[in-house]
Amino acid sequence: MLTSLARRCIRAPRVVPIPQGRSLSASPATAAARAIVYSGNGNPSEVLSVLTFPDLPPPPTNTLNVQFLLSPINPADINVIEGVYPSKPKLNGNLTTSGLGSQQDPVFVGGNEGLARVSALGSGVEGLQEGDWVVMKTPQVGTWRTSANVKPGDVLKVPSADKLTPVQAATLVVNPPTAWNLLHDFVQLSEGDWVIQNGANSAVGQCVIQVAAAKGYKTINLVRNRSDLPILQQRLRELGATEVLTYDELAQDGIRDKIKSWTNGKDIKLGLNCVGGPDTTRMARFLGKDAHLVSYGAMSKAPLSLPTSLFIFKNLTSHGFWQSRWYADHSLEEQQSMLRTLTELMANGKLLAPDHEIASIRGSDSDEVASEHIRSMVEGITSGQYGKKVLLQFESDEA
Amino acid sequence: MLTSLARRCIRAPRVVPIPQGRSLSASPATAAARAIVYSGNGNPSEVLSVLTFPDLPPPPTNTLNVQFLLSPINPADINVIEGVYPSKPKLNGNLTTSGLGSQQDPVFVGGNEGLARVSALGSGVEGLQEGDWVVMKTPQVGTWRTSANVKPGDVLKVPSADKLTPVQAATLVVNPPTAWNLLHDFVQLSEGDWVIQNGANSAVGQCVIQVAAAKGYKTINLVRNRSDLPILQQRLRELGATEVLTYDELAQDGIRDKIKSWTNGKDIKLGLNCVGGPDTTRMARFLGKDAHLVSYGAMSKAPLSLPTSLFIFKNLTSHGFWQSRWYADHSLEEQQSMLRTLTELMANGKLLAPDHEIASIRGSDSDEVASEHIRSMVEGITSGQYGKKVLLQFESDEA
Repeated sequence: MLTSLARRCIRAPRVVPIPQGRSLSASPATAAARAIVYSGNGNPSEVLSVLTFPDLPPPPTNTLNVQFLLSPINPADINVIEGVYPSKPKLNGNLTTSGLGSQQDPVFVGGNEGLARVSALGSGVEGLQEGDWVVMKTPQVGTWRTSANVKPGDVLKVPSADKLTPVQAATLVVNPPTAWNLLHDFVQLSEGDWVIQNGANSAVGQCVIQVAAAKGYKTINLVRNRSDLPILQQRLRELGATEVLTYDELAQDGIRDKIKSWTNGKDIKLGLNCVGGPDTTRMARFLGKDAHLVSYGAMSKAPLSLPTSLFIFKNLTSHGFWQSRWYADHSLEEQQSMLRTLTELMANGKLLAPDHEIASIRGSDSDEVASEHIRSMVEGITSGQYGKKVLLQFESDEA
Repeated sequence: MLTSLARRCIRAPRVVPIPQGRSLSASPATAAARAIVYSGNGNPSEVLSVLTFPDLPPPPTNTLNVQFLLSPINPADINVIEGVYPSKPKLNGNLTTSGLGSQQDPVFVGGNEGLARVSALGSGVEGLQEGDWVVMKTPQVGTWRTSANVKPGDVLKVPSADKLTPVQAATLVVNPPTAWNLLHDFVQLSEGDWVIQNGANSAVGQCVIQVAAAKGYKTINLVRNRSDLPILQQRLRELGATEVLTYDELAQDGIRDKIKSWTNGKDIKLGLNCVGGPDTTRMARFLGKDAHLVSYGAMSKAPLSLPTSLFIFKNLTSHGFWQSRWYADHSLEEQQSMLRTLTELMANGKLLAPDHEIASIRGSDSDEVASEHIRSMVEGITSGQYGKKVLLQFESDEA
């Protein structure tokens, strides 16, 4: 039942047309302003609702109105709604309640990441024009909505927007920068150096493969065993993966010799972890002297258990990485410079859009029906039904 | 039985006279040259033997002869004999076989650390004089012996030797530098900053307390619960510990508020770990944002298990420290400078000799009897019978 609802809601992946200049500026037309909201933390499949609210007024001075084109549903968004993520949306004095004036109770708007188009500029706003593509820089702005009034500091103008697909732009600020920073912030890699990562098929994992390939780093990519493993291996190799291994293979006798033959005995300098648990312990044992292990996720929900001897005698250093902290710790210039680097890779075909599906909230559906859809869709995502990045799109009621 | 043997061997702690200048140079007199050796890895209580060997010949060019005065039995020495330590003594072409010419089989000499007196200089040796106190710089020289022929690069002259007790000098190169580097190499601490450490009653732990106190850093010191806890707490406080807690207390409700009241809400910047296991996981949860956890031991033999969220959201970094690597990675000038700093602290009464017992190998005992003594003594040490640092001394047969 939930599955069939989810299927109704998730349309088949489709090619979103690459905009010609600002040609997307009038599309999709949005008749009703809507948002996916919740008034308290809980299971997203219970607490989320779709609400229709009045159109935004013209933007006050030093603010702008934006119209969201595509907003990813990231795993962290689910955690925010559940209340188990350190970044919290704010209830008062910011965007999350704005535009929902008729509501008695204050609400949060879901979503952290999203591509929006500047629809109107308040006086005093500089450096942006109507029609510009922007992505959210301030965390937890609430991107699962048709439109919002924001401050210029909340957004970053997408560089080389005309060379990106909407999906590339909508997924620009979290996963690709995470991959870039994981590969550059902890150890100085040179061409031919080796990196090992788990969760290699994740959105970040695929970006790591591509950024590493573009820089000439070699990657050993760990994935779960599955029936269609050869297809996955083939796909990751096409992205630039040097080697692909399952966790089961990593546990087999003789694997150390195999890896040694790949690396020609060279130390693996960097390990990237989004899984945790025993598979990560095993991965860490293949790191070389003075290596760095960087964790940016814990998909297994198991802690990271490492033999102390790796730290003492192999000089392992274990770090964490959180892209939100990176943004907080880096200047606007540094942020723009990184996004430029990434959009250049994208424009050159070296960093592809993630595998994805577009999930539409249909304008013709009532808030009640749309709410049911979004709840079952999120339930499908949390149960791992999709295996692809899902991006939300609000369709006009003519759709 | 073993215990009584051990008791025979371990003399009561005694005050070793502080030397007046070089007055210790002729003491203890050693009639027979002897060494504690093993020919293959194994349980030290089975594989160790005491061997008598001919007196050293005069030192060849560019070498020197030294006479060992006191040599600690450190936990790592046991691991080396067991064959489970990464530093291995060499069999050929170095000291471990020299002077044992009459032996058919090559042997290893136990011991890594030790205080020796220069007894004879070969031609070409500069910067050292007969009677100088030296400590071993090259790892695994084999210090459990009466005398050895070494290269000038194997030793460091003890700075301010006339201000140190033999025990302070004999334990100078491993534990005090470890404590110093743990407190200085990973995070920049300022006066009033907080450090938390486990195994606080260990030899390194006691040095950490004293160095931290000398620098004005505050320490929270974790120890095992025991019947004489108040005495231990008192003793650690006298060394300079700010607070002393048991692991049980750290697991109690309300402890977070207690620690917060001690630190006045200030983040704890550094955690030092020589234990591992669940108690260390618990300790890590009390570290502040951007903190560093440095492991230098694993007394519980349990791995280090840390929630990934600490790495990602609190920016924890987990390192290892190994003093042997520090020596390998630092110049002679840096090594000498650190030892000078530490001996100044010692000379000023800010870094005391560790609690210790002197274990004597009596000159009047046959090799067979002495071998039995050393085996049962090491067995006593590994079973945790002493709880103090044990230092070996070879006595003359007039003793």
